[in-house]
Amino acid sequence: MNTIKIISDDDVKSILDLENTILCVENAYRQKADKRATLLPLVSADLVEGKADMDIKSGIYQTGNLFGLKLVTWFGDNKIQGLPNLTAMAMVFDLKNGFPIALINAGYLTAMRTGAAGAVGIKYLANQNAEVLTLVGTGNQAAFQIAAALTAVPTIRKVNIYNPRNEKKAHLLQQSIRTKLSGINNSSNDFKNENWIQRIKTVEFYAVNNIQSALEETDAVITITPSSQALIKKEWVKPGTHISCIGADLPGKQELDETLFRTARIFADDIDQASSVGEIQTAVSLGILPIESIREIGYVINGNENGRLSNNDITVFDSTGIALQDLAVADYIIRTAEEKNIGTSVTI
Amino acid sequence: MNTIKIISDDDVKSILDLENTILCVENAYRQKADKRATLLPLVSADLVEGKADMDIKSGIYQTGNLFGLKLVTWFGDNKIQGLPNLTAMAMVFDLKNGFPIALINAGYLTAMRTGAAGAVGIKYLANQNAEVLTLVGTGNQAAFQIAAALTAVPTIRKVNIYNPRNEKKAHLLQQSIRTKLSGINNSSNDFKNENWIQRIKTVEFYAVNNIQSALEETDAVITITPSSQALIKKEWVKPGTHISCIGADLPGKQELDETLFRTARIFADDIDQASSVGEIQTAVSLGILPIESIREIGYVINGNENGRLSNNDITVFDSTGIALQDLAVADYIIRTAEEKNIGTSVTI
Repeated sequence: MNTIKIISDDDVKSILDLENTILCVENAYRQKADKRATLLPLVSADLVEGKADMDIKSGIYQTGNLFGLKLVTWFGDNKIQGLPNLTAMAMVFDLKNGFPIALINAGYLTAMRTGAAGAVGIKYLANQNAEVLTLVGTGNQAAFQIAAALTAVPTIRKVNIYNPRNEKKAHLLQQSIRTKLSGINNSSNDFKNENWIQRIKTVEFYAVNNIQSALEETDAVITITPSSQALIKKEWVKPGTHISCIGADLPGKQELDETLFRTARIFADDIDQASSVGEIQTAVSLGILPIESIREIGYVINGNENGRLSNNDITVFDSTGIALQDLAVADYIIRTAEEKNIGTSVTI
Repeated sequence: MNTIKIISDDDVKSILDLENTILCVENAYRQKADKRATLLPLVSADLVEGKADMDIKSGIYQTGNLFGLKLVTWFGDNKIQGLPNLTAMAMVFDLKNGFPIALINAGYLTAMRTGAAGAVGIKYLANQNAEVLTLVGTGNQAAFQIAAALTAVPTIRKVNIYNPRNEKKAHLLQQSIRTKLSGINNSSNDFKNENWIQRIKTVEFYAVNNIQSALEETDAVITITPSSQALIKKEWVKPGTHISCIGADLPGKQELDETLFRTARIFADDIDQASSVGEIQTAVSLGILPIESIREIGYVINGNENGRLSNNDITVFDSTGIALQDLAVADYIIRTAEEKNIGTSVTI
């Protein structure tokens, strides 16, 4: 008989803040590069063709003495019944004896660690003192991407919001963004989020309908759409821009003009996974982007690879999302839940 | 917010019986053959080389309107500290909306469904009226294999017990086997296991130290060892014998002389998985056994393939264990837990 801790989505919301999530995600990338974290093969499947799918991401996080998996489901028609499209559950095990430690509702965890991924890309690859961020995509993830970017990169003072298919949605997000951001905990040291709310007030948010002209002033881009065709043309991207590509995580998805990869410096969370299901999949399969030229972001974080070489480089971070992000954040959640006596312990 | 049911190993023990487990496992194989159940790729990994490993088996069980996975860990050194070597956890989701339904401690579930697999092989592939079963292996699984075989094949009246490395262990199991079998629920209709205990009394159990002579009188064999070399020579197996191979489920494992596969009729739970990690892996990789000649057991159960063609055929069932067995049994457990109000519901 074992005891397992059940940690609900509300529990996770009460524990997680942006600063610690970003630290965990950076650490996951670094430990992977240092071979102290092991990514296992992705399992993905259509459940109902075109309407529902799932994937299982698993790995071993030696640093935290744990291993486990996260299963994420997407059910497109749930919205019609007023139910959430995404469900995510993470199971974490003890690397010392294989016993289960925790079952975590990983909905909020996934939103936070995915936001952190985009932000870590900007932090390590964009030009110093990046001031203007352009967000392509206005779904649920948009606020988490902006929140994490503002947290990881304190110089950002302006955020452009663009929806490639529906201008109105960009305006709606512009109107609600400060409220949404205020609802995300920024730092475990920022009592009642007061400093964070001050910070948000100093940032300008604009809905834009001309992405080409927005890109002229942009230092960093985050793409977070479910698109299956290029939304940004190569010639629109000015020298020095960094792009964190978050949306593409399944075969057939794409947000950037693949010819951009001829000249840009490309980084990925995991080169195999990104090449098969990420933003770079088309460029790799067409032979535009040789796999050998792709760098893993963990090696930039641990100092064993260069990020950008000059102010004029265009850099791209292709993040498909890896189990080690989930495990690193889960490790933090479990330790905090233990300290603060959060969650429900059940005999299993 | 969702509610998930946590079902402990003791809960599972109070629910599961052999008859229903065998029905579920048969059904899993049949539904797979009928394309109403989908097996997803196996993930397996060493956690500590030679000392600990894990695998994740997942699938979609359309028939039960659910999908999910089971993670099993093996930690060789746990025994030293008086802890169990194996841990298994199953997570089950609703195929209508992706929501989690249950987290099940799948230790007992795994033992029962693995016993059922060996028995289903005998039921569908051995000669009619099989009387003598020989069990090769005396570990924790041995009693479950015997129990399921006696349940699925009522004509068995004698069981030989053989340990290829330690004769004493065979004698110890012979002494304890009736007690062990009595502790496993046989049928949901058999109040207090009374008929089952009567049945066990009529069966003879012998520890044998000469496997060659034991095989001369044997109708059905179950191999359930962690061996990585052949324990049974081709020339020892008399015409008409059926062998259910349960032990081999990882690269490098083997229990039978691979040249047996030149002439035997071969069946598997899943041909891909068996060819890569099951008993037939060596024969397949050496070219002794053409993949095209292997049949899936589900097609025998649903009547679309012949089992044995004559009383003299040697038949082999290679069972590596598939997620659909777990999901079919989990489906039964969840429905019964709901009816009988067993398990702990937790908001997640």
